[in-house]
Amino acid sequence: MSAEVAKRMKRSKLDIPAGVSVKHCHLTKEHFKILFGSSAEPKRVKDIKQPGFYAAEEMIDVQGPKGVLKKIRLVAPYRDHTQIEISVSDAMAIGLKPPVRESGDVKNSAGATLVGPAGRIEIKEGVIIAQRHLHFSPSEAKNLGIASGEVVRVRAGAGGGRSTVFEDVVVRVSDKYSLEFHVDTDEANAAGIKTGDAVHIA
Amino acid sequence: MSAEVAKRMKRSKLDIPAGVSVKHCHLTKEHFKILFGSSAEPKRVKDIKQPGFYAAEEMIDVQGPKGVLKKIRLVAPYRDHTQIEISVSDAMAIGLKPPVRESGDVKNSAGATLVGPAGRIEIKEGVIIAQRHLHFSPSEAKNLGIASGEVVRVRAGAGGGRSTVFEDVVVRVSDKYSLEFHVDTDEANAAGIKTGDAVHIA
Repeated sequence: MSAEVAKRMKRSKLDIPAGVSVKHCHLTKEHFKILFGSSAEPKRVKDIKQPGFYAAEEMIDVQGPKGVLKKIRLVAPYRDHTQIEISVSDAMAIGLKPPVRESGDVKNSAGATLVGPAGRIEIKEGVIIAQRHLHFSPSEAKNLGIASGEVVRVRAGAGGGRSTVFEDVVVRVSDKYSLEFHVDTDEANAAGIKTGDAVHIA
Repeated sequence: MSAEVAKRMKRSKLDIPAGVSVKHCHLTKEHFKILFGSSAEPKRVKDIKQPGFYAAEEMIDVQGPKGVLKKIRLVAPYRDHTQIEISVSDAMAIGLKPPVRESGDVKNSAGATLVGPAGRIEIKEGVIIAQRHLHFSPSEAKNLGIASGEVVRVRAGAGGGRSTVFEDVVVRVSDKYSLEFHVDTDEANAAGIKTGDAVHIA
């Protein structure tokens, strides 16, 4: 067996939990204060799987030219750039056409109006469709011989009538990351998977 | 080159147009009359790609335990069984969990309340998530050596950042069918495709 084949077999055997991202937002401190008031701070509801991040109590509405998405949950802590992550289904419902982007890459993405209990903001960019990706810790990545930035394929939903091989899956390695395959609700529904289901590198 | 390889190559070269099904309904005559009135008849808006079918002017609301889907378009003519085809995203929004089914296979599928301008009906079954499928005419199928009921894989969205291989794609051959790859909005959005985009057997 060649080294390449051995590597592929090892990769394909690892059970990777799916993490389905429902539409959510990340806010700068400045934007948070406008939306929720100058003395407000994000209130933790629960930690999410990626270390250091938590779902906050605060929610905003996102307005597009054709409608509004209500109650979009804040994921804290603050970020350097405000970023709204929605699915294509969500985007079509309010008349937006955001690009598919990796988190943090918001330059020239879609704009929208953000509405909170204390105020509203017009953002020129920040709304994106999340690029599907795999999170690895450095030790997990080393064990599989996989590098940050590598593009792989992931099989999900086998046996459920909607087995799907997702291509264009970007690998991200960081000591802040926990093993997880991140997709949005459109992608999860297309494959018939939910958070926690095991998927495999194909 | 083996016959099998030659067959696969031939199959993979055919451009197949995607047909994205937005949520819609098919109604029995009896149900139509309850919802729209005894003297009403479906009014043609436009033909759809599959011969003999047309989108009608009439729309209904579909109520589930957690909400309502508004303005679900009727696809006519009448059918022997009422069938509501929605995406998983749609289903979750109203609190339903319909099974993935081929069209016509509504036995023990999900129920809902249908609401029209003239009346309402509680259906015990009929709400499904459509099984993705390929439509072939007999001559197209013969040319590719493909049989009705065969399960194939289809690659869609290549080059757009969301390339996806859909497995569990059922082939249906009929002289009533026109070449088309049928997916719902979740599936189309997961691959970044729209109606008319070319997809390929993988």
